[in-house]
Amino acid sequence: MLEIAFQPDRSGREPVYRQLEVYLRELIESRRIAPGERLPASRELAASLGLSRNTVNQAYQALIEDGLLSSHVGQGTFVLRQPGPALRPVAEPGARGFAWAGLFSRRATATALPRALRGGRAPNPPFDFRGGQVDAGTLPRAELRRAFGRALEPLDELAGFRDPRGWPPLREQIARSLVGRGIRCAADDVAIVNGAQQTLDLAGRVLIDPGDTVVMEQPGYFGAALAFGASEAHIVGCAVDEQGLRTDELARILRARRVKLVYTTPAVQSPTGVMMSETRRRELLELADAYQTPILEDDYDCELRYGSPPTPALKTQDDAGQVIYTGTFSKALFAGVRIGYVVAAAPLLLQMVMSRMAVDFHTDVVAQAALAELLESGGLERHVRRVRRVYASRRAALLEALRAHMPEGTSWVEPAGGNTVWVSLPMDLDPVALHAAALDEGIEYARGDLFTLDGTLAGHAMLSFARMNRTKIDEGVERWAALTRREQKRAQKSA
Amino acid sequence: MLEIAFQPDRSGREPVYRQLEVYLRELIESRRIAPGERLPASRELAASLGLSRNTVNQAYQALIEDGLLSSHVGQGTFVLRQPGPALRPVAEPGARGFAWAGLFSRRATATALPRALRGGRAPNPPFDFRGGQVDAGTLPRAELRRAFGRALEPLDELAGFRDPRGWPPLREQIARSLVGRGIRCAADDVAIVNGAQQTLDLAGRVLIDPGDTVVMEQPGYFGAALAFGASEAHIVGCAVDEQGLRTDELARILRARRVKLVYTTPAVQSPTGVMMSETRRRELLELADAYQTPILEDDYDCELRYGSPPTPALKTQDDAGQVIYTGTFSKALFAGVRIGYVVAAAPLLLQMVMSRMAVDFHTDVVAQAALAELLESGGLERHVRRVRRVYASRRAALLEALRAHMPEGTSWVEPAGGNTVWVSLPMDLDPVALHAAALDEGIEYARGDLFTLDGTLAGHAMLSFARMNRTKIDEGVERWAALTRREQKRAQKSA
Repeated sequence: MLEIAFQPDRSGREPVYRQLEVYLRELIESRRIAPGERLPASRELAASLGLSRNTVNQAYQALIEDGLLSSHVGQGTFVLRQPGPALRPVAEPGARGFAWAGLFSRRATATALPRALRGGRAPNPPFDFRGGQVDAGTLPRAELRRAFGRALEPLDELAGFRDPRGWPPLREQIARSLVGRGIRCAADDVAIVNGAQQTLDLAGRVLIDPGDTVVMEQPGYFGAALAFGASEAHIVGCAVDEQGLRTDELARILRARRVKLVYTTPAVQSPTGVMMSETRRRELLELADAYQTPILEDDYDCELRYGSPPTPALKTQDDAGQVIYTGTFSKALFAGVRIGYVVAAAPLLLQMVMSRMAVDFHTDVVAQAALAELLESGGLERHVRRVRRVYASRRAALLEALRAHMPEGTSWVEPAGGNTVWVSLPMDLDPVALHAAALDEGIEYARGDLFTLDGTLAGHAMLSFARMNRTKIDEGVERWAALTRREQKRAQKSA
Repeated sequence: MLEIAFQPDRSGREPVYRQLEVYLRELIESRRIAPGERLPASRELAASLGLSRNTVNQAYQALIEDGLLSSHVGQGTFVLRQPGPALRPVAEPGARGFAWAGLFSRRATATALPRALRGGRAPNPPFDFRGGQVDAGTLPRAELRRAFGRALEPLDELAGFRDPRGWPPLREQIARSLVGRGIRCAADDVAIVNGAQQTLDLAGRVLIDPGDTVVMEQPGYFGAALAFGASEAHIVGCAVDEQGLRTDELARILRARRVKLVYTTPAVQSPTGVMMSETRRRELLELADAYQTPILEDDYDCELRYGSPPTPALKTQDDAGQVIYTGTFSKALFAGVRIGYVVAAAPLLLQMVMSRMAVDFHTDVVAQAALAELLESGGLERHVRRVRRVYASRRAALLEALRAHMPEGTSWVEPAGGNTVWVSLPMDLDPVALHAAALDEGIEYARGDLFTLDGTLAGHAMLSFARMNRTKIDEGVERWAALTRREQKRAQKSA
């Protein structure tokens, strides 16, 4: 007689009937119960396993509907003679495996992922200065729950939704809120994307042929290098100083070659935190006009700024419609929320939206509806205000800790916005060794070379103050400073 | 004195303070209130507008934080002298606009969107036979609400989530449920994507260089043509008959040229609904082995099948790991849920995941967590069972209606699964005129040419039975049949 040694796990949420169903399915498909064999009557099995008869019946019924069992009144339940599919483990790579590596496209092999992005990192390092992270404790938990609950109310419309431009109420809300960035536009000027990263990818798709030149800030956002690299662009770096993108250098680049796109982060330069000056903005737009070059303005962290009143977006000075403007909610909320938006002239926006259909049709509509709720209710705005105060205090703590602890030769930029500080380390140490030593002590931060095209600037560091409280920030910097001094001594000895 | 003629809208969910804030912001930024001007005290304004003083204070506070107002104790609230950003409407395309069209990439201009996908369609046509739609009434509303509510519980983990492969509990659940397709794999063999469409896009990115050949079924899924077209593939069609993909034709293609990828829909051929026979499956795999060609198996509608017990996925017979398997939840739930998965050999999966980071990093994590809940609780499985019964009945109704009403010369394939029927119209009519006439009467369906690379097969139609009840299906087909006869007569006359 067949032995069914099933033990339900009552700790999780999975109903017991489903656990039994999965268990029986494995027995059948692995042929440990052969075709034609009779299963115990549900009453017997229920008694022997200490389950309700209904639980067993539900499991049997599921397997009958999947064609694995057949049931005949008065005779019992049998495994179908129809041979079940043989289970096969997914083939491992190896000697007998398929030679995938030889088949990869140029695009695929061209885009090597920076080591820092390759995972393997601790989810919760003791001192987390990494960018792109938030302090979950600051998130508006109740508002998020309410927004997602309400999002599902118009289920009929959600179910019928197929507009690649995005959920109309969300586009409406974004158009409204963009007034705060000085941009007056209609919902039809806005398209929803999976975070600002997808705007970069779509701009690459729509504008870049292999070998075309894209200019980006150096140091600059690594995601831009990823996206344009995947379009096989020739990426040219343009230096950044305390006023933002160096327009004199950009002018030289534009004189020397045809540039298909200039990517910039005027509000909060990534990673330095510098705000582009009025003069530079004017010069940038003049150059873009003179050379008829599109600009991609990534306003990714526009909600977070300190001190001076906000400078309106570059897009507000864009008379010809040659600025592609993008923003995201991944920063105001958290990176796992993949919703961003793009505002651009109609012909370009249409082309981006059409190209987007080939990728994934559109952004998840439930998340879009939830975000529309969060905007309409004012919940997002309230959250941003709250978190801006929290971040202002943590920003001050980080700057203070750097002043208090770091050795001479360290310098940094006081960021105009965002939640990171760009630090230049003393020259008399090995920054790669320092980074590794810090990692060993649970201090995680991004090394500067992540933000360069040529692997330089390893002697810089980007530290985020988003995730830890003031005490933790101070302690983290103090420990890091001690390691920095140790590395200075080590370098002296070996010199 | 400044006139503030604000009227709150109390019908919506937007709090009144936010409405007032947006109203004042517009006045300030459009300079209808000039810099330096004094706003009414909050008590006065509250009284004159019939609002609570707290509402006015909240609006003022928001504008102070945004740097638009300044407040001095004892003096009042002023518009900052700092000039506010000038509002500019987004530039319209036109004579003075930027010449975007000349800048588009080859990829962008190569992928013309089929007219049928260009929108402008009614959201709720009276007789909706369009594919990709579902009957919202069949959706598990309460289960969805519960799943999204629970999804937000582990907010700390969601906020820290950055794994491009996807939310681990969802990958775990998918690995479990794939046993039902005969595939035994670990969570690490699964990556989450934005619907099966993104698998196609990523396969294109990773495997296709411009000009490389991809083979797909003809007629075949239009989304595949979009994705591979965007990779600038040379797409070659391979015929389909009542046993699925014609392997004899595939053999000829493979002999003639190097093929980088074969795309197929074995479980429910899109759009014909045919299931690939055992013989063809074996021949396909033999050919793929002989020519070392990867296969992309799109198991998009695997949950919906009628009659015979399910045939296991092609992937189960894949010894070398050369089959890329993809599935989606957009069909079991609704298309707006952009969650799919891909199972593939490790080196390929890694390359796809890395390429994916350049696109949008990863899929929305709240939606992933909700789906993991829906799988774990058995809610999705219960829904699929329920809807399978509903669809079986509607499928029968559509087949019956076609038999009862359509003129001689019409034929169709009884689909093995999915929720569409592929109909061949009589030869003696103009199918484009019929399609237009049907549209005018509110009968919407996909014309066959949407599924071909060369615009042929317009004399076919794909009708979905998902969205209407049996009566509505019968009525729709009856009206369509009348139009078909009318078009036949018209063609006779003009002949």
